[in-house]
Amino acid sequence: MNQKKVAIIGSGVIGGGWLARFLLNGWDVNLHDPDPEAERKISEVLANARHALPMLYEMALPAEGKLTHCATLEKAVRGVAYIQESVPERLELKQEVFANIQAHCPAEAVLASSTSGFKPSELQQGSHRPEQIMVCHPFNPVYLLPLVELVPSKATQDAQIARAKDILTSVGFYPLHVQKEIDAHIADRLLEAVWREGLWLIKDGIANTEEIDNAIRYGFGLRWAQMGLFETYRIAGGEAGMAHFIAQFGPALKWPWTKLMDVPELTDDLVNTIADQSDTQSGALSIRALERLRDNNLVAMMRALKQQDSAAGQLINAHEKSMRQIAKPSQKMQTIQRNVPVDWTDYNGHMNESRYGQVFSDAADAVLTNLGMDEAYVAAGHSYFTVETNIKYLEETHASEDIMVDTELLLAEGKKLKLAHQMKRVSDGALLATCDQFLLHVSLETRSSCVPLSPVANAIRILAQ
Amino acid sequence: MNQKKVAIIGSGVIGGGWLARFLLNGWDVNLHDPDPEAERKISEVLANARHALPMLYEMALPAEGKLTHCATLEKAVRGVAYIQESVPERLELKQEVFANIQAHCPAEAVLASSTSGFKPSELQQGSHRPEQIMVCHPFNPVYLLPLVELVPSKATQDAQIARAKDILTSVGFYPLHVQKEIDAHIADRLLEAVWREGLWLIKDGIANTEEIDNAIRYGFGLRWAQMGLFETYRIAGGEAGMAHFIAQFGPALKWPWTKLMDVPELTDDLVNTIADQSDTQSGALSIRALERLRDNNLVAMMRALKQQDSAAGQLINAHEKSMRQIAKPSQKMQTIQRNVPVDWTDYNGHMNESRYGQVFSDAADAVLTNLGMDEAYVAAGHSYFTVETNIKYLEETHASEDIMVDTELLLAEGKKLKLAHQMKRVSDGALLATCDQFLLHVSLETRSSCVPLSPVANAIRILAQ
Repeated sequence: MNQKKVAIIGSGVIGGGWLARFLLNGWDVNLHDPDPEAERKISEVLANARHALPMLYEMALPAEGKLTHCATLEKAVRGVAYIQESVPERLELKQEVFANIQAHCPAEAVLASSTSGFKPSELQQGSHRPEQIMVCHPFNPVYLLPLVELVPSKATQDAQIARAKDILTSVGFYPLHVQKEIDAHIADRLLEAVWREGLWLIKDGIANTEEIDNAIRYGFGLRWAQMGLFETYRIAGGEAGMAHFIAQFGPALKWPWTKLMDVPELTDDLVNTIADQSDTQSGALSIRALERLRDNNLVAMMRALKQQDSAAGQLINAHEKSMRQIAKPSQKMQTIQRNVPVDWTDYNGHMNESRYGQVFSDAADAVLTNLGMDEAYVAAGHSYFTVETNIKYLEETHASEDIMVDTELLLAEGKKLKLAHQMKRVSDGALLATCDQFLLHVSLETRSSCVPLSPVANAIRILAQ
Repeated sequence: MNQKKVAIIGSGVIGGGWLARFLLNGWDVNLHDPDPEAERKISEVLANARHALPMLYEMALPAEGKLTHCATLEKAVRGVAYIQESVPERLELKQEVFANIQAHCPAEAVLASSTSGFKPSELQQGSHRPEQIMVCHPFNPVYLLPLVELVPSKATQDAQIARAKDILTSVGFYPLHVQKEIDAHIADRLLEAVWREGLWLIKDGIANTEEIDNAIRYGFGLRWAQMGLFETYRIAGGEAGMAHFIAQFGPALKWPWTKLMDVPELTDDLVNTIADQSDTQSGALSIRALERLRDNNLVAMMRALKQQDSAAGQLINAHEKSMRQIAKPSQKMQTIQRNVPVDWTDYNGHMNESRYGQVFSDAADAVLTNLGMDEAYVAAGHSYFTVETNIKYLEETHASEDIMVDTELLLAEGKKLKLAHQMKRVSDGALLATCDQFLLHVSLETRSSCVPLSPVANAIRILAQ
């Protein structure tokens, strides 16, 4: 079984998203989809993913894996460590595909379905190895959003679940282990509740699609992106506590607020009303343009949460840390290799001068990490502060370009540290900017300069020899 | 009627949020609440708001208005332009408060209720000036989230609605005009649908509070914070179009996915289960700490959307633009006065060096704006690019401090521009950093340097004389 090889069965938006996430995390991918359009569809999703995913990280992702289009299911699943099924949402079709997969795949490979509605026990019906099968339900865009609902049935093996969690986490997903199987898992049940109420609001002429979207994105959507429902309400409950807050809701839940007791009939009229409203709201942008807008917003918000080390941003930081390697310190070293994210550009269409400063600040951090200044060293009360920088901006840099920094250690003596950085474009090696940087070692207690302690002092001594 | 004076009736979390939003936008506020705890409660909300709201803007907000605690309702509402009622959610109480208000307030003042459930026509019952009354329903934290559901009844005057919209927009709200009144307006109907389904998931042991929150904030919560429901689904529908996508939903809506046909009974057992799960999830943090966490995340995400000029960020940019004044160019000028946001600090607990660079980059932009380089000038194909900066970091700067920059124009000759900036702390005038900056005027078409055109060339000529 190849430890970093995955089979993707089905190449729609969801299958393509799985493929992109694995490929960009350095996995080889076997794709099987008899659809003659598969190659075109995949290349569109991949283009989006290559634009957006690398922007989430302050370091380069591993080199892309190899993508192989396989004419047969058999060829696709043979010897792989993980198989993700994303064929259309018909139970008999999925059961048939699973039977074919299990006839050829390793018994210990993870075998997961993207189904949004079916339970794993339904997928397992008729299987000769039901213990291998589970649901791993992702969210669009799969290459950016971390959530995967991992739903086993009682028949699914524990070892299988553990393997799936490890693999999903290693490519940046958050596997949410759903303890009990249920139709539509968790998130889609919540989504459907809102969708149904939204249909009523439109049908009754209370609000149109744009007004409903604005009611979400200017209000509770912003709350939910970072805390969800219950933690938000815990705050609303205040000092009185959660039990008091919920008990208050008793009468409200019985008010005649919503029409949720009933399902609106999707007549042609209602379908056309919604489609027309949506055209008015978003018709000026193509689907591709909307995707780019969505992805750029997601990248910017997830990077903001990353900077706060909170919610989805905390997941990205943990993923990044799992990939980071600490180099040995040396006089000359490569300190940065990364992608330029969309939130770094300004009205001139290029990377703002302050972000050059950020890259060089990160380059200095890489040197300090190599010298042994880790989180524990800072937590114990010492760090380096930058005293002066001189930056020369030589070439423009744009969003989604790959850049690197070579750093020379000019001086490391007592509390002084002088660095010279060169920022280059990866594609052609062009020199983009230079930076001379002067740092002082400080006590975080007195906020005054002082000589470094071990292991930093040691590393500097060894370097000097 | 005092054009920038508001009366806040009721000082809970919602009333306090209204108060803070108006006060920090330069309005004088009369507060009336007979609760002896009112002063303490308000001061807690104000402390949160003073920490968070100024961080949304790249400029200083107006000087804070004057807060007056009024012993009587009569004193609070006399002569004000806007009155916001946020008393407990009991219809008879609200009707009584409205009668008292209307006995003393100007007939042309906006008179709005924060009610989350009642319709304006219900609030208007028995009023002798029903045309003055409407619902303006905000979302917690009111000082940060832009959404206000503005719900008039048929009796509410158009002039009154227009006045309310103007005032709300001027303090950074997004008034969503709900065309038809309905119990619980729009957003709370969607929220209640999810809340009800969430209760079922807990009751049936499918997921606990933390798992449900994670299912939201790692997945669709991130989508909804920027696009909402329908635009997100428009993308999911792809090229086939929205009508095709919705029609597909027909059968799914009738699947036995959710228990929404029924209301779970809030037994003591269920209430305690939820409270216990919430304690396990978030009990390590006090409500104050959770509020700070929430607000810092909101600030960071809203600033990210602001940088993308999208969703809630677009609203903040528009609000900021409405407040900005362009100064006459001069040899020495104050170019920046602003607050340091939470997303500008690093592991040393102070403002990262790159953000000093950003402040100086913004200072240069202010000079260029004063010289006549506006959006039209850039759109027509010319701009200034920074060629070199030299920054000396003299003192540390921390989140939520107010800073300012004084800029001297050292040289403006042909295509060259040299600036010297001094960044100072507002509270004590301490010099925090200096920056020498060298810029060149460029053609955005050729990306090469060239002499500036009018009106920039003119402004430089006049300055030289």
